Amino acid sequence: MPGPLLAALDIGGTKIAGGLVDPRGALLHRLQVPTPATGDRHELMAAVTHVLDELARRPEWPRVRALGIGSAGPVDIAAGTVSPVNLPGWREFPLRSEAATHPAVRDLPVVLGGDAVAMTAAEHWRGAARPYRNALCLVVSTGVGAGLVLDGRLHTGTTGNAGHLGHISVDFEGRPCPCGARVCLEGLASGTAIARTAADSGWRPGPDGDTTATGVATAAKSGDPLALAAFDRAAQALAAGIAATATLVELDVAVIGGGVAAAGDILFTPLARHLSSYATLPFTRSLHLVPARLGTDAGLVGAAALARRALLAHR
Amino acid sequence: MPGPLLAALDIGGTKIAGGLVDPRGALLHRLQVPTPATGDRHELMAAVTHVLDELARRPEWPRVRALGIGSAGPVDIAAGTVSPVNLPGWREFPLRSEAATHPAVRDLPVVLGGDAVAMTAAEHWRGAARPYRNALCLVVSTGVGAGLVLDGRLHTGTTGNAGHLGHISVDFEGRPCPCGARVCLEGLASGTAIARTAADSGWRPGPDGDTTATGVATAAKSGDPLALAAFDRAAQALAAGIAATATLVELDVAVIGGGVAAAGDILFTPLARHLSSYATLPFTRSLHLVPARLGTDAGLVGAAALARRALLAHR
Repeated sequence: MPGPLLAALDIGGTKIAGGLVDPRGALLHRLQVPTPATGDRHELMAAVTHVLDELARRPEWPRVRALGIGSAGPVDIAAGTVSPVNLPGWREFPLRSEAATHPAVRDLPVVLGGDAVAMTAAEHWRGAARPYRNALCLVVSTGVGAGLVLDGRLHTGTTGNAGHLGHISVDFEGRPCPCGARVCLEGLASGTAIARTAADSGWRPGPDGDTTATGVATAAKSGDPLALAAFDRAAQALAAGIAATATLVELDVAVIGGGVAAAGDILFTPLARHLSSYATLPFTRSLHLVPARLGTDAGLVGAAALARRALLAHR
Repeated sequence: MPGPLLAALDIGGTKIAGGLVDPRGALLHRLQVPTPATGDRHELMAAVTHVLDELARRPEWPRVRALGIGSAGPVDIAAGTVSPVNLPGWREFPLRSEAATHPAVRDLPVVLGGDAVAMTAAEHWRGAARPYRNALCLVVSTGVGAGLVLDGRLHTGTTGNAGHLGHISVDFEGRPCPCGARVCLEGLASGTAIARTAADSGWRPGPDGDTTATGVATAAKSGDPLALAAFDRAAQALAAGIAATATLVELDVAVIGGGVAAAGDILFTPLARHLSSYATLPFTRSLHLVPARLGTDAGLVGAAALARRALLAHR
């Protein structure tokens, strides 16, 4: 029987995706367009409008009850604006109100969230964080993003940026991070950082010439000690950050997703080992460490989860 | 007109205090006994029973609706037990159920919490955190304790230890902390650490021979550069930890109490300066930094706040 649906937008530096999601979190339909990343505010919004146009043409559209938008950050959900680092055309751009003016959206609640928080909502709704009341969900890829579930509820923070683990300092007297603080986690644990650590240590790629974290992971899997050391260092910094979070808010689980997590044991084995040395207090020792479950659909399912959450709250 | 009251116990390494608190948070009556810190489980409990006996003798006792207990940690509020570091006679001691067997308490709800979380509840109820929905409240004294208010509610964590800022690592590759992790905040920012930093740098006390953080603060106030440097280093580490917390959960305010905070500007001036260099993301920049307002009564008022919270939740 046809039931209510949620519409979802996932806005990133390379693609803008749209989807329709059923009340159980199944993605019924999806489409995507390339992000005009260097475009001005209008060109960027035109791409969003195009995706909404296409979604609104679907026969299921009349069943849609809310629109959720997950966007590259920083976001400000109190103001309804986004300022994605990789989309310079949008600075404090009022994405929520702009999307709400689309003819097909006009009567729907529109909910905005950051992409890592959306992914967290997705993993808690129907992924690896589902059995837990307190979760940190990380996306380790080009950067390091994360979100929090506390006491069974998504913790967004006032502006929607809570869980921004990538920019906590893990060496307060170390070298400056581009953000202004010192030695932020992202500068040690992201894919970019793993590739740099490996290159700095003298590691050189194989015949495929892949110098990214994926190339380092491939070398690590065949036992290359410099490649293994690069992942070990990232894992140690991640462990310190996860342990700090567990110490601050009490966590039941850390869910790790993103491209770097695809390295599997190469990341998870040293991460578990380091975590046991940083998470030493009794209440942090039982923390679970699990891979994310919702691969590439996490962004859309997460945006739908944000929309669903708003519907539940207004009941 | 006589209204309902809350009974409160504050259990620390040097004293066990009891009090009666009115619904507005005013402390109507208090008493305390020395903690038999080296005593066995029975001796420790006998001291608690004595304080409860005295409270129950007060003419106001029949108006008491709940008992709140704030205890030195670690605690486990899920299990109702305490294992205070400084009271070796109590390891996983079932303080909540033991207190509940007291004849005068038998029909009352009994709520247990850690001392730093109780202090946080007090500052949020009627102290410096009152105007804010998201707060970190720190006690900087012999150690560093803290608690969190998120979305307007006390965030205790499942076991009651959330906010344990003293044991987050601020230098993930540094020297080991007694807890097993590396360079925890407490090892740099506590009063103990300030005294050690000063001594290690060659600072020597004045004629009063006071080598504690209080002595260092006195010297710093008269411009002693080594004493000022010891406070500056503690402030830098504290700033990194507060900024990490703000980055993880989004904070409106950090409230600083405890003996070291009594140094006033000697601590707050460098703390504010360092905080502006660690809390660099837009959503962390507006964080307020204020001194705690409830001095020595914070423990009892906080224990009462825990009891009050339970009454409100069960309405």
